[in-house]
Amino acid sequence: MDNRPIGVFDSGIGGLTLATAILSEMPNERIVYFGDTAHLPYGDKSPESIKTYTERIGTFLIEQNCKAILIACNTASAIGFQALEELAGPKILSFNVVDPVVAHLAGSPYRKIGVIGTKGTIGSHVYRDRIKAQLPDVEVVEKATSLLASMIEEGFHDNTISRAVIQAYLEDSQFHDLDCLVPACTHYPIIKDEIEAFFENQVEVLDAPGIVARHIKKVLVSRSLLADSRIGDHQFFVSDLTIGFERATRIFFGQELNLKEHRFPDQ
Amino acid sequence: MDNRPIGVFDSGIGGLTLATAILSEMPNERIVYFGDTAHLPYGDKSPESIKTYTERIGTFLIEQNCKAILIACNTASAIGFQALEELAGPKILSFNVVDPVVAHLAGSPYRKIGVIGTKGTIGSHVYRDRIKAQLPDVEVVEKATSLLASMIEEGFHDNTISRAVIQAYLEDSQFHDLDCLVPACTHYPIIKDEIEAFFENQVEVLDAPGIVARHIKKVLVSRSLLADSRIGDHQFFVSDLTIGFERATRIFFGQELNLKEHRFPDQ
Repeated sequence: MDNRPIGVFDSGIGGLTLATAILSEMPNERIVYFGDTAHLPYGDKSPESIKTYTERIGTFLIEQNCKAILIACNTASAIGFQALEELAGPKILSFNVVDPVVAHLAGSPYRKIGVIGTKGTIGSHVYRDRIKAQLPDVEVVEKATSLLASMIEEGFHDNTISRAVIQAYLEDSQFHDLDCLVPACTHYPIIKDEIEAFFENQVEVLDAPGIVARHIKKVLVSRSLLADSRIGDHQFFVSDLTIGFERATRIFFGQELNLKEHRFPDQ
Repeated sequence: MDNRPIGVFDSGIGGLTLATAILSEMPNERIVYFGDTAHLPYGDKSPESIKTYTERIGTFLIEQNCKAILIACNTASAIGFQALEELAGPKILSFNVVDPVVAHLAGSPYRKIGVIGTKGTIGSHVYRDRIKAQLPDVEVVEKATSLLASMIEEGFHDNTISRAVIQAYLEDSQFHDLDCLVPACTHYPIIKDEIEAFFENQVEVLDAPGIVARHIKKVLVSRSLLADSRIGDHQFFVSDLTIGFERATRIFFGQELNLKEHRFPDQ
């Protein structure tokens, strides 16, 4: 048993959907969350910048005595994960949000898989390339659906506007005959039901945070690293604090959180 | 006559609407543009961060030998202008996008004025406070319409989605009986026609970039600082370059631009 916290790092507060899933699967765990709001959104940043941010925040989470660190951001998972693994070394577990989803798909019967995400995630082709490496015969279609994240942050979901935007993106002919859709952005779990409704429940929309959280649990269990009781409170840090982020935590964590600001000297 | 360039600084590429307006009013001028894409959007950043960014980019534009510097970003105009003025001193002209609009309104017959912008701009109340200082009897109503900027950047304009989002924000009862609306975000000129159509052309939607550009022209003329011919090409810098920004310049400048990356050591 290991009661050290799990670090969760995202470009903003959307990664709280992953923190929620982790606590749902492993209620004894303690979370140290870091949202790099000074540099959000990562999808627009260069690989060089994203690696620097990942190393900086990874170092911070290691200093917080984390036993494991999850990159909740898809863009940073694609670009910064290797840098995190090198930094964390063998004693601290490193996770990203891409590999567990790809591993989940590898055991699936799907023949046509769609991936939606930000421009950064889709432009990296990380899901397509890793799925094809496992399942060379599967067709993978990708689309950047960049307005969805800001739409959700602005509170437009479960209404006529979100339905119209979802339709505008997904009525794309390449998504016909889809078996499965990967919602490859931390924000999309909020509109999972609406996406399923658009496809008239004929397409499996993955519960990506649940898949990632169950993967982390399996690894922690296998190494006897689960916590047996919660020691201390969760902590939620951001690199630049404004009231809008505190308010928006309600969308992604189900309750409004007190965020703490931690600024880096050179941020 | 003074053929040194005019510096235009914005958090991203939306400020190209101001560059467009300046060149429309003063076709001999040369523009040096700086989009701080490493830190976009400014509306979510703390005042401390925005002042730091303004000083850093102001210094860069002074080094480019600019005769005048315009802060095209509303958030930075509200928070960083004093820092820029102190930095630029009396020999380099400093402009922001708020004061010329307020001065324009001061001579108007309007009794009820609306202001829309990002959370940062609206939360600062800079337009309301400066308009009320000039026109204490005028009613000023404000609303953060944050999704509009990302909607425009994503190419959703002049379609059913943009009309639905505009309606969702503007059908607010506080906007009834409006005489004039200030579109207080660099992106909004792109949807000016749609906003006017929503109000059935009964509300004056200000041409904010035109007002700012004519103000700059007036000051340059009064000081004999207009250029008499274009020496060299415009230059467009960003602090973090990705292809998405180059593509999106078409929306805001009418043609796709080659952006140059200029990174600051401590950005």
